[in-house]
Amino acid sequence: MTNEPSIAPTEVPPASGPSAPAASPSGPESRRARGEYYLGRITGTAGSNVIDSLQDMAPELGHWIVDFAYGDVFAGTAISLRTRELATVSALTALGNAQPQLKVHIEGALNVGCQPEEIIEVILQMAVYAGFPSALNGIGAAREVFAGRGIAMPRRAPGAA
Amino acid sequence: MTNEPSIAPTEVPPASGPSAPAASPSGPESRRARGEYYLGRITGTAGSNVIDSLQDMAPELGHWIVDFAYGDVFAGTAISLRTRELATVSALTALGNAQPQLKVHIEGALNVGCQPEEIIEVILQMAVYAGFPSALNGIGAAREVFAGRGIAMPRRAPGAA
Amino acid sequence: MTNEPSIAPTEVPPASGPSAPAASPSGPESRRARGEYYLGRITGTAGSNVIDSLQDMAPELGHWIVDFAYGDVFAGTAISLRTRELATVSALTALGNAQPQLKVHIEGALNVGCQPEEIIEVILQMAVYAGFPSALNGIGAAREVFAGRGIAMPRRAPGAA
Amino acid sequence: MTNEPSIAPTEVPPASGPSAPAASPSGPESRRARGEYYLGRITGTAGSNVIDSLQDMAPELGHWIVDFAYGDVFAGTAISLRTRELATVSALTALGNAQPQLKVHIEGALNVGCQPEEIIEVILQMAVYAGFPSALNGIGAAREVFAGRGIAMPRRAPGAA
Amino acid sequence: MTNEPSIAPTEVPPASGPSAPAASPSGPESRRARGEYYLGRITGTAGSNVIDSLQDMAPELGHWIVDFAYGDVFAGTAISLRTRELATVSALTALGNAQPQLKVHIEGALNVGCQPEEIIEVILQMAVYAGFPSALNGIGAAREVFAGRGIAMPRRAPGAA
Amino acid sequence: MTNEPSIAPTEVPPASGPSAPAASPSGPESRRARGEYYLGRITGTAGSNVIDSLQDMAPELGHWIVDFAYGDVFAGTAISLRTRELATVSALTALGNAQPQLKVHIEGALNVGCQPEEIIEVILQMAVYAGFPSALNGIGAAREVFAGRGIAMPRRAPGAA
Repeated sequence: MTNEPSIAPTEVPPASGPSAPAASPSGPESRRARGEYYLGRITGTAGSNVIDSLQDMAPELGHWIVDFAYGDVFAGTAISLRTRELATVSALTALGNAQPQLKVHIEGALNVGCQPEEIIEVILQMAVYAGFPSALNGIGAAREVFAGRGIAMPRRAPGAA
Repeated sequence: MTNEPSIAPTEVPPASGPSAPAASPSGPESRRARGEYYLGRITGTAGSNVIDSLQDMAPELGHWIVDFAYGDVFAGTAISLRTRELATVSALTALGNAQPQLKVHIEGALNVGCQPEEIIEVILQMAVYAGFPSALNGIGAAREVFAGRGIAMPRRAPGAA
Repeated sequence: MTNEPSIAPTEVPPASGPSAPAASPSGPESRRARGEYYLGRITGTAGSNVIDSLQDMAPELGHWIVDFAYGDVFAGTAISLRTRELATVSALTALGNAQPQLKVHIEGALNVGCQPEEIIEVILQMAVYAGFPSALNGIGAAREVFAGRGIAMPRRAPGAA
Repeated sequence: MTNEPSIAPTEVPPASGPSAPAASPSGPESRRARGEYYLGRITGTAGSNVIDSLQDMAPELGHWIVDFAYGDVFAGTAISLRTRELATVSALTALGNAQPQLKVHIEGALNVGCQPEEIIEVILQMAVYAGFPSALNGIGAAREVFAGRGIAMPRRAPGAA
Repeated sequence: MTNEPSIAPTEVPPASGPSAPAASPSGPESRRARGEYYLGRITGTAGSNVIDSLQDMAPELGHWIVDFAYGDVFAGTAISLRTRELATVSALTALGNAQPQLKVHIEGALNVGCQPEEIIEVILQMAVYAGFPSALNGIGAAREVFAGRGIAMPRRAPGAA
Repeated sequence: MTNEPSIAPTEVPPASGPSAPAASPSGPESRRARGEYYLGRITGTAGSNVIDSLQDMAPELGHWIVDFAYGDVFAGTAISLRTRELATVSALTALGNAQPQLKVHIEGALNVGCQPEEIIEVILQMAVYAGFPSALNGIGAAREVFAGRGIAMPRRAPGAA
């Protein structure tokens, strides 16, 4: 009998709201539209708040986030949004010097359908690859996000010792 | 019409070879057995070569890798091995100071059924979160691994600009 | 006449409290017992508070801290606990992204018998190897810990310019 | 019966060669003399080779290494040279991006009387605080240094599992 | 017609206050005098406040900052103080783990005559080389500094998209 | 008499070759044209070689480098190309985990008119902000680049001790 992990839940397309614009055109209107779609899909209103807050100091950084980070990079279709967000949570946990952005992407992972247990497990994996402090501080970030969303943590799955 | 990414391919249980030992018992024999299973499943023979090479200098580090990293941490069942390896590839790409281990886990991602395009895409995501040098050097690591395995890279999926 | 540094003070075994369990058995009860011993010896009650706080989100991380970090890694006998803690303080100062854990281990260094001057000196060494910001921020962490413990800092030893 | 680690071996003053100049004077001749003493004491001839190699490009960096790093920072007497070198080895292992300097200080630790087992143990400690890749790469650096010095590694002390 | 960037404004020597002491003598009085000059020129009173705050815990770190960091390293004349401060702002933004010092040097850049737009632009450059989180957090640091100085940000120069 | 650093040499517009395309249009043809201009201006042929080498594995990363990194980010006109490259050299030196890219930008700094002494001085500044290993390894990268270009290093300017 195998106890290999079961397949993670299927990603459910958004029940409401716009669909993603066509990925391939690279003109400014398409990149902007696609970027705004993914920014909202992943970060809810938090992302546009960040963009707005940049208007005084560095509006171009806001454009680059929408057009490049979310418009170009998120256009790739080889991985799901869930995998993309779990990858970002892992990396930001490992780096340990970007806690505001880590929280944004823990929220993002939840927004695109990741389960809290999945998020916790990629953070814990970082205990091996970046050390226990990075994992502890990542769990701290997740705790804040989960509390803010009223997520009550159940006991972990039986695979945990 | 939506162009949200399709679901990543289903993870196929190993066609041959041993199944994972039961996850929950935490005694030394179980941790060792589980760790050796996952070490082999993910790293092929590369992992056990590393463990063997540690026998002279630091055998306990070898034990910790098998028992803790692969025995305890990999026992979690909330995420698939594919997600786990993509998370690790992302983090090691972002850190940029562990290229030997990054190559091991690019191999590992392939070994557990990730597609080359999936691996490339999580590496590219790191251009946003850790900078272009980290992504360039991660692609360099992937190039070495893919060449060693005779993987000919097709043109990327149309979602890429 | 030489002014090579004198030998650091002898480590004094704990005046009271339990002795460390035998190091070698690797079964779960032994690892747990040894880990709990060292967790308490080094972190006082702070460590068990951290473990308790993990019960909701990630109890397995708490187990790994006790069993692996303190049970397995601290079982090595080639270095004293004082050296071990000074090494950890140095590394966390250099990394600069784990200030909560740095404070825990500055406390830990004091708990196992390090002098405040020893702690300060390994932190200052990091000005050379990781830069002045890391050393300044490490001194800031030490200041908080020393103040909380009522440690009044004397003038530094004459070897300081 | 306790199995707390025994006290690390006493640091033995150099059997031959110059003694350290008086620590306190801060004039250029004193800093230079003290720095050259410690540079040689710790790095053998490797350090002066580095200083010489800087003459073409950046002679002032060579001066700063001798006068500041070894003249000023190493003048502190609260910790022994052994502790200082073990702290540096730990930090450079954790940082993972300074392997040439890590090897210099593994050599340095041996030169000032650290045992190979002590060096290995502080490197292994970094598996907890900076992740397994940092410890693996640190062991790799130590392996090169030990081989170059003909150090045959015995089995580790019984505290190791 | 070219739109290559125009030359950045000329650095204006201080209208009042002392001139820099002669650079070359390396005796303690000269290093101290030169260091105190540059510390004040760059950090205003913030730097001497930091030095004062170190008197209890680590006065030698204060000496090293004045004598070495500002006395020796800033004595180089191949680059202007403006370039030096912009380089430091870039590096501290990229490192992402030294926000207090980043703010000191954003202030420092303004103090030596950098325009706010120059500071913002080197921070934004770090989105490419260290990732968007580092640039976002650097802009956050700049926002605090600019607000504290009553700097109202105009719209960015037309080269920005 | 002041010995404040003199103003760095004026940046001379390219004597031949294309001028930079107009900065403001953000359409794909303009971004591409501007990016290719700056890629060549800064990296010579090295940059286009990197882009070509990405065609098999990750052509989109090549597009992002040209269009975003060099097309969008380099379009800012508040700083000169010389300042931009010195900032990048500083940051990559401090990070210490991107030596291939550091060499590209040391070359780039020379290509846009920086003097070797300016490059060395920003690298040396990193001894203060990121530690001596980062500066040593940065000087090593510069040595390789300068040797490859037949740059014979003169003695440093008198401001150096």
